[in-house]
Amino acid sequence: MADSTRKHRVVILGSGWGGIRLAQDLNLNVFDVTVVSPRDHFVMTPLLASAAVGTVDISCISQPVQRIRWSNEIHFVEASCESINMVGKEVDCVSTMSSNSSVHVPFDSLIIAVGGKSNVFGIPGVREHAVFLKEVSDANEIRKRISTCFKRASQENLTDDERKNLLHFAVIGGGPTGVEFIAELNDCLTEDMNKLYPHLQKFVSLALYTSGASILQSFSPKLVHFAMKHFQKNGIPVSFQSSVESVEESKFTLKGGRSIHYGMLVWCAGVAPVELVTRLTDGPHAIAANDKKSKRILTDEYLRVLAPDRMSPLEGVYALGDCADILGQGVPGTAQAANQKGVWLSKSYVGKWRAILDANDPPEIPASPSLIKRLQKAPFYILPSFGILTFFIWRGFYLIITKSLKKQVQLLKSWVLNFVFGRDILDIQ
Amino acid sequence: MADSTRKHRVVILGSGWGGIRLAQDLNLNVFDVTVVSPRDHFVMTPLLASAAVGTVDISCISQPVQRIRWSNEIHFVEASCESINMVGKEVDCVSTMSSNSSVHVPFDSLIIAVGGKSNVFGIPGVREHAVFLKEVSDANEIRKRISTCFKRASQENLTDDERKNLLHFAVIGGGPTGVEFIAELNDCLTEDMNKLYPHLQKFVSLALYTSGASILQSFSPKLVHFAMKHFQKNGIPVSFQSSVESVEESKFTLKGGRSIHYGMLVWCAGVAPVELVTRLTDGPHAIAANDKKSKRILTDEYLRVLAPDRMSPLEGVYALGDCADILGQGVPGTAQAANQKGVWLSKSYVGKWRAILDANDPPEIPASPSLIKRLQKAPFYILPSFGILTFFIWRGFYLIITKSLKKQVQLLKSWVLNFVFGRDILDIQ
Repeated sequence: MADSTRKHRVVILGSGWGGIRLAQDLNLNVFDVTVVSPRDHFVMTPLLASAAVGTVDISCISQPVQRIRWSNEIHFVEASCESINMVGKEVDCVSTMSSNSSVHVPFDSLIIAVGGKSNVFGIPGVREHAVFLKEVSDANEIRKRISTCFKRASQENLTDDERKNLLHFAVIGGGPTGVEFIAELNDCLTEDMNKLYPHLQKFVSLALYTSGASILQSFSPKLVHFAMKHFQKNGIPVSFQSSVESVEESKFTLKGGRSIHYGMLVWCAGVAPVELVTRLTDGPHAIAANDKKSKRILTDEYLRVLAPDRMSPLEGVYALGDCADILGQGVPGTAQAANQKGVWLSKSYVGKWRAILDANDPPEIPASPSLIKRLQKAPFYILPSFGILTFFIWRGFYLIITKSLKKQVQLLKSWVLNFVFGRDILDIQ
Repeated sequence: MADSTRKHRVVILGSGWGGIRLAQDLNLNVFDVTVVSPRDHFVMTPLLASAAVGTVDISCISQPVQRIRWSNEIHFVEASCESINMVGKEVDCVSTMSSNSSVHVPFDSLIIAVGGKSNVFGIPGVREHAVFLKEVSDANEIRKRISTCFKRASQENLTDDERKNLLHFAVIGGGPTGVEFIAELNDCLTEDMNKLYPHLQKFVSLALYTSGASILQSFSPKLVHFAMKHFQKNGIPVSFQSSVESVEESKFTLKGGRSIHYGMLVWCAGVAPVELVTRLTDGPHAIAANDKKSKRILTDEYLRVLAPDRMSPLEGVYALGDCADILGQGVPGTAQAANQKGVWLSKSYVGKWRAILDANDPPEIPASPSLIKRLQKAPFYILPSFGILTFFIWRGFYLIITKSLKKQVQLLKSWVLNFVFGRDILDIQ
């Protein structure tokens, strides 16, 4: 098996939780692994909210794809996949390094783990004026905007109303991202920014706006109660049934006509499929089954992509993470679920996988029924800071799942430093 | 003196070495200190070269102006000074927070410490295609460009010549910045990038291009010899008498016609005065003396700005750092010199300063003759990595002069981590 031409070629599309977990764990004596992604790094997404308000350094929350294993044992192609040639067994990509340069990467097995993109529901002005919370650059942008709001509000020639408008921080979306982010933002504003700008304290406000009647709608009532109690205790207002109709440079309008001025608007209102997924699952040339509701790719419980008839799996094509769902399951689009699918796929199949991939019918797999059970139990990663104990428990968890020793040391350092010295939100990153 | 309206108002223009040192040290019981600068942070410039190649984290090398003292005891106005009203005793600024909004800051004493800008000598293409080494954003840009060069050179459809061109790293300028940077760059390429991209190693090259017949022209022959020996030992070529005539996107042309392809071109070829300094010292409305050669503001040896006739000092106006020189001295434009001037000004005058400022003739000052002596002895901060001992000596020095405990801990951590795990050049900052 030393001859690399004889190894089974696994191509992974995407550098998020699902794909990177698999790339990390696959047995490289058996598989020749190539990651194809327009993004050259993995992002520790559950820590984005913390990084955005300076609780952790931005450099701690990402890991270059080339460094996810000890040396460059896996190949990385920085490119965006445009289509999949199922007959010729290759993916057709456009390199992000030089425009118009197409790259064709052949595969024996393909893993689709391309994630999703922020859903703006076609609402005008959101792309132009809001900031999101998906990428490292977003966290950086949020830091800058918070700092800029305070700097602009300190200018002398402003009225009180202008200061209030500049210092209103609006978070749109009552899902886990919005809820977690506003809790972190509140800590940052009350613990740090108020100390740096004590004279502006009385003008600062924040609020969560959600179109629903409750926050965290798909999660347990216990968790909702817990979060709402935390919000009440900390004076974080939630505006229910508040659908955004349009966003302008410094104000947004809700359905019903109410306009709200803001200094920063963070859009956390859901996930939409990326273009590739739409192309694969929609229209007359679709090759994969479409989950009508979430628009995700449907797989069987072995994570094999189903053909549009939802009956037969496509040979050697797997999907996991936010871009995919198991038929009939409704697995949440969270980092945990993607990670667990990646772990399951690699653990169950490493060593045995090749035989399975070659066969049409998957043989009996010891761990197979456990995947769905595990996914149902997947811990929900919400992280409002509920005091010092929770602080250390959650942080311990992140420390364990962080993907390299170096990053673990950095993360630990940045928590300790920020705990002692205050957040680093003013720092240039 | 508790009444703040009665404090002597010191306005410092600039957030670099000279200005920030003074802002840190001035006695706030006596002085009401305001820093006016378009840049909201101090940059540890001698560490820029290290940060640019990932030896230290980028967040370690800057410090927000608001955090240079324990709380917000000094005022900060984020604005660019356009002119100085000597009669009305105020500086006229344009806020960087909102365009066209002018700010007038009154002073009793004014410190001009606005630094300089990169000198491109009017050579076409430099501003568009080169990268500089003056700001934090430059260090970030260099990291990205190094990484991009290697990623582009790894693409499959390239010829060997194209790979060589993409992996030629050109540093322009034989002064301390260029010399220090190319030594750091060489370490980074040989120690880290060659490990990440072993198959590209044979295509990588770098060179220093200087218009002079020697490097480090204004420094001691001993230091020049030392640096050249290091360059020879490490195979760093220096191209003497190589004046750049024009720069294009992927190649530059020397006087004489030779063209050289490059992947990244770093411009370290000297300092030019910023617009404010030119306005203050040039033309019929000049208020300050001009050093004909360096175009800097001339001061007496008490750092008081001289009127255009070079005879009498302007009342209550001081200048230090790269934008200023002492008449007849030719103080080098280095971080050390600026820092020493700042130290001297604050140490000699704290407490006593007010009386001095009020008087026209400076009284006898115990430390006064020592400034020029000290400046002549100012240690030169060049830092090629000459083995492990030098490594720790220099790093110890930077650790001491770094401006906050938190930054010191961060810096130490980033050196230790990078020493153990390799440089972080691929990291997103």
